[in-house]
Amino acid sequence: MMSMGRAFRVTLFGSSHGPEVGATLEGVPAGTPLDLARVQQALDRRRPVGRRLATKRQEEDRLVIDSGLQEGCADGTVIRGHVANQDVRRGPYEQMRDTPRPGHADYPARVRYGATADLSGGGIFSGRMTVGLVFAGAVAAQMLEPQGIQVASFTRAIGSREGQVRDSMTLDEVREGSSRNEVGCPDAEAAQAMEADIEAARREGDSLGGIVETLATGLPVGLGEPFFDGLEGELAHALFAIPAVKAIEFGAGFRAARMRGSEHNDPFFYDGEKVRTRTNHSGGILGGLATGMPLVFRVAVKPTSSIAKSQETVDLSRHEGARLVVTGRHDPCIVPRSVVVVECVTAAVLLDLMMRGGFYP
Amino acid sequence: MMSMGRAFRVTLFGSSHGPEVGATLEGVPAGTPLDLARVQQALDRRRPVGRRLATKRQEEDRLVIDSGLQEGCADGTVIRGHVANQDVRRGPYEQMRDTPRPGHADYPARVRYGATADLSGGGIFSGRMTVGLVFAGAVAAQMLEPQGIQVASFTRAIGSREGQVRDSMTLDEVREGSSRNEVGCPDAEAAQAMEADIEAARREGDSLGGIVETLATGLPVGLGEPFFDGLEGELAHALFAIPAVKAIEFGAGFRAARMRGSEHNDPFFYDGEKVRTRTNHSGGILGGLATGMPLVFRVAVKPTSSIAKSQETVDLSRHEGARLVVTGRHDPCIVPRSVVVVECVTAAVLLDLMMRGGFYP
Amino acid sequence: MMSMGRAFRVTLFGSSHGPEVGATLEGVPAGTPLDLARVQQALDRRRPVGRRLATKRQEEDRLVIDSGLQEGCADGTVIRGHVANQDVRRGPYEQMRDTPRPGHADYPARVRYGATADLSGGGIFSGRMTVGLVFAGAVAAQMLEPQGIQVASFTRAIGSREGQVRDSMTLDEVREGSSRNEVGCPDAEAAQAMEADIEAARREGDSLGGIVETLATGLPVGLGEPFFDGLEGELAHALFAIPAVKAIEFGAGFRAARMRGSEHNDPFFYDGEKVRTRTNHSGGILGGLATGMPLVFRVAVKPTSSIAKSQETVDLSRHEGARLVVTGRHDPCIVPRSVVVVECVTAAVLLDLMMRGGFYP
Amino acid sequence: MMSMGRAFRVTLFGSSHGPEVGATLEGVPAGTPLDLARVQQALDRRRPVGRRLATKRQEEDRLVIDSGLQEGCADGTVIRGHVANQDVRRGPYEQMRDTPRPGHADYPARVRYGATADLSGGGIFSGRMTVGLVFAGAVAAQMLEPQGIQVASFTRAIGSREGQVRDSMTLDEVREGSSRNEVGCPDAEAAQAMEADIEAARREGDSLGGIVETLATGLPVGLGEPFFDGLEGELAHALFAIPAVKAIEFGAGFRAARMRGSEHNDPFFYDGEKVRTRTNHSGGILGGLATGMPLVFRVAVKPTSSIAKSQETVDLSRHEGARLVVTGRHDPCIVPRSVVVVECVTAAVLLDLMMRGGFYP
Repeated sequence: MMSMGRAFRVTLFGSSHGPEVGATLEGVPAGTPLDLARVQQALDRRRPVGRRLATKRQEEDRLVIDSGLQEGCADGTVIRGHVANQDVRRGPYEQMRDTPRPGHADYPARVRYGATADLSGGGIFSGRMTVGLVFAGAVAAQMLEPQGIQVASFTRAIGSREGQVRDSMTLDEVREGSSRNEVGCPDAEAAQAMEADIEAARREGDSLGGIVETLATGLPVGLGEPFFDGLEGELAHALFAIPAVKAIEFGAGFRAARMRGSEHNDPFFYDGEKVRTRTNHSGGILGGLATGMPLVFRVAVKPTSSIAKSQETVDLSRHEGARLVVTGRHDPCIVPRSVVVVECVTAAVLLDLMMRGGFYP
Repeated sequence: MMSMGRAFRVTLFGSSHGPEVGATLEGVPAGTPLDLARVQQALDRRRPVGRRLATKRQEEDRLVIDSGLQEGCADGTVIRGHVANQDVRRGPYEQMRDTPRPGHADYPARVRYGATADLSGGGIFSGRMTVGLVFAGAVAAQMLEPQGIQVASFTRAIGSREGQVRDSMTLDEVREGSSRNEVGCPDAEAAQAMEADIEAARREGDSLGGIVETLATGLPVGLGEPFFDGLEGELAHALFAIPAVKAIEFGAGFRAARMRGSEHNDPFFYDGEKVRTRTNHSGGILGGLATGMPLVFRVAVKPTSSIAKSQETVDLSRHEGARLVVTGRHDPCIVPRSVVVVECVTAAVLLDLMMRGGFYP
Repeated sequence: MMSMGRAFRVTLFGSSHGPEVGATLEGVPAGTPLDLARVQQALDRRRPVGRRLATKRQEEDRLVIDSGLQEGCADGTVIRGHVANQDVRRGPYEQMRDTPRPGHADYPARVRYGATADLSGGGIFSGRMTVGLVFAGAVAAQMLEPQGIQVASFTRAIGSREGQVRDSMTLDEVREGSSRNEVGCPDAEAAQAMEADIEAARREGDSLGGIVETLATGLPVGLGEPFFDGLEGELAHALFAIPAVKAIEFGAGFRAARMRGSEHNDPFFYDGEKVRTRTNHSGGILGGLATGMPLVFRVAVKPTSSIAKSQETVDLSRHEGARLVVTGRHDPCIVPRSVVVVECVTAAVLLDLMMRGGFYP
Repeated sequence: MMSMGRAFRVTLFGSSHGPEVGATLEGVPAGTPLDLARVQQALDRRRPVGRRLATKRQEEDRLVIDSGLQEGCADGTVIRGHVANQDVRRGPYEQMRDTPRPGHADYPARVRYGATADLSGGGIFSGRMTVGLVFAGAVAAQMLEPQGIQVASFTRAIGSREGQVRDSMTLDEVREGSSRNEVGCPDAEAAQAMEADIEAARREGDSLGGIVETLATGLPVGLGEPFFDGLEGELAHALFAIPAVKAIEFGAGFRAARMRGSEHNDPFFYDGEKVRTRTNHSGGILGGLATGMPLVFRVAVKPTSSIAKSQETVDLSRHEGARLVVTGRHDPCIVPRSVVVVECVTAAVLLDLMMRGGFYP
């Protein structure tokens, strides 16, 4: 289904090569002020970055609100927004009907939905569907701010380059640092190398993956629903909807597997009136509930599957092997564009859990 | 909430130190034969392993079916099963009310639910709640088998020891190999070292984490609901409900972040009539849908938080720092016992998706 | 929330005086053929009837499919369709912000959602939202037909006029008879009187209510989910979403309260191979499950609340009593237009239950 | 499925002839005080009434709380309560496997779930499942009281006897009056006639139906979720789960169909600071939202289907007609016992909507 959330409910509509993509938002209380300029800024962060890429698929991605707002405030009903698909070119995708792209949903989608399903440009499997996620999450982020909650995602690694990010960096520093370059990494030096690597990959007709890290502060202690709907489960469920995300780890994550309990357990102490932990291996979550320490997690983004290199595939109508060179317009690395999507999905999940848990006023 | 699944719906009840734990299962069609002996075997795999540990908390964990079965078959109504909590000792936990255990849900649960909430032994945050998951998943596994679907989880790593598992190993070999030792690792040599490490950790009053890997074969191509309820999202959502799971990766997972598209994309080819891929970096999932290749994922299990070593914590009633030595009975490493839980949760999720997608007859 | 159904899921969007109204449909299998001309016919049945009314609010209600169809068949993804709101006049509604219309949602909606909420023309409380229901239900009806299920609603009564409908009338006869007049009543003589009464009510600036009856045949025995999601509960839940519906009764309904068990119980007998009942006081439902006999129910539609007569109300800004004459364009009786809405909602619910119960192929 | 509600979620378990029946309640905030004696009183009201009936099936229906309470308060986790089935006699039901009782779920349940399903005593279709509803609703009623919300159901009619209830009667008077006799009707004279009629029906081996009316006061204006989850839809959905309920009408209900708009519309006026309506034909609901006037609705309860008279049915194994005399223990009229069930289901739905709408603190 195309919906996420229970109290703050987001339903995506449209598809990559239809007339529009967008989302409906349910659960925003009447009178909530919404700054659409800031929502547009989030959408702009999702657009292809850089001079070098800007000549390709051109989408303005201007947000249009169809209903639910009045004089800058939510009217308590469903908020519906969309952006038009302006630059739709169907041609390049027709050939792929019978020769599924390796690493892409083409093959299982065709078996499941048949040859007639709208797979052009990925249909609902396209990264373009994330427009609705950004719209929803940018609204959620604005609603979280007055509650003292901030979310910032950034590029931790691209290919073999990993940015160095001090543990003591504040959320503001992370946000500020990652806004200074096109790849969204707070480590300026690493960012430069990442950009060069992306450019090199593109020249070779290849692609790169990477890691997006997220930091969220101000979560009330206890946020998260017990057992099945804890913070990890709810976040993971939503984040895996982002195309190309293949892994997620909270706090120490896979490193926790190699640690001893005496090392991994975060000791509690009083910092004035506030209970904090000396380390944050838990990533701010114990038993699915927020500890009050920063929420920290990383997702792995696989390299873009659509590459210009010739690949081995099959011809499903001829029942034989085939070669495929994917044309069309594709980012050699979607990590920089995924950053804002991860950040927005996180905000949407946190807002939903705030509302479900009675933490939202 | 204590429920997972939509078409095959599992609701957990009970708590660690109440009279019983168990689950209700909705959605099992009338006439489905259920072999309770095999369900009991799964529950037995969840029990503490080994001579060395067997002297501690003693639970027989005999499954009792309260309703929903008749003459060995589901009657189409709700199936409800429980096991009694026999060896309940409340004492050791009382002290922890005010001094939350580092690495455990005590602190956020107390802030959220108050000092009166039943936190003894972890309440609903206890590993004992997984009894209901194993019951549900063992039923699901039996229902998946006639559909040609098999699920096998095993211990991939404990602490710094990693088992070597050939990619060519069949599911049967994995299952057989991991049943030969107490830690559930198909690599016999590594298993021996793991057992020694666990024993050493216990002597030191410390604990170890590890990695559980899962292999599932026979998934119909296209299994998984598009976008929000794809295979990764649904599995991750449920698996993070297992206490101590802090990370999950599908296929190449975090390694994918360092690969190039030309390397990561799995090339398609015809193996007789069947479309397969030469590699399986996707872990059997593209666009949230099954590719027909084996489903492969790994979860990280953090080291047991309850350790005998003295730890720094706070006294919440006195508002000051405190030291805590957790007594009670605890596994120095829960990875071996988590294996069957991960396997069962996987089966439950797959069955639910089979039913939701119209793949289950 | 604006969604109904679980397996066949309908989400409404838009509002009465925004640019459009419509619905997204999830769960239609790829390859399902859809005859859009027939969907349009259903939408046409929802439009204001008759020469006498046709001069008022003019909406062409041409259905536009935005996504999900390809070459006349569902592509397995979300189907999204809308009709434009062409004849939007905001003016007449502005005055009602402070003087809520008696019998309308104005007052509670304003208290709940505030004065800024888009209440013009009823916003999401408007009868115009039923466009999406008709679209969804007309699609569902086409999918039910190959399963042997037919649904027909008709006008049983308007004001004090009640149509005579023989119990032996077939669904085809009901459908054919009710299509012959503008009020949708199979009793031609009563229909004529109803039309005259509606015209008279309009002249007097008043309105009439009535009763819509529904007949559905071909339901598989056992259709309906046990307990909370039985046929009565699921149908009632959805039908009360239709504006102005205030009551529902299945089979003998309120008459059952006056019957004895020996009279009310429907005796079973074999009609050839088939088990049938001699009477159908149960309306084709026992224990929430279909008996295989025709599904029969009636809903009461209250008289249109927007009337031209001067009414007593309050001025919410001045905190004093006020008089209100509702201008704008309103049907003196919405029963004839409700018929197709009831029929379509019924089809949508039945399809959802067919899918959820594994009855749909 | 066996669950209702989203924020206050009730899941029923057990079955008529298994060891127990009960419910789990999710969503009760930690620290909520619960008076179990009052819950038990509600359960006692559900038991068979009167000397004349008291000699039949004997169930003490003592509530046992399994988890979720501590020192008289909810601990914020799942509350689970059950009552034991003490007086289970399977014998009388065996014969009915092949000869379904007219008016009962036997036949469709058998077709749907097969001959092996546990139909004895009705299984999950038995009125005994309502024990869980009363438990849940009695808890909900206690939580609504501090919010100023009161719910009272009473017997409006049994067979052809209808109680006279003045419109000016307060909820307290209704409650007090209906507690004075065994049928739960505030009209003492009518109650006497009803009792005599029930006794007469029993002597004749026959049964009676009736009408239960409900009054709820103190609902905040605007309560109810828009469109699909309005007050009418949510209440109807849950109330049709009560066995034998076949119709529901809000406010004027079916009478509204015969009224003119000028007569049916309830005029608003200021009663001091408060907006009220001069009449309450809407039953306290407009557009699915509470108006602040008393919520009023009636449900029709069909006559008990299990009667001692010989009835025509079929023998499903022999494929021929048959006669059936239902033995076992059955109430000649379940209306008096349904009163508390309707009242409790209403309270549970209102609490859920209070929580979902942000009205519950």
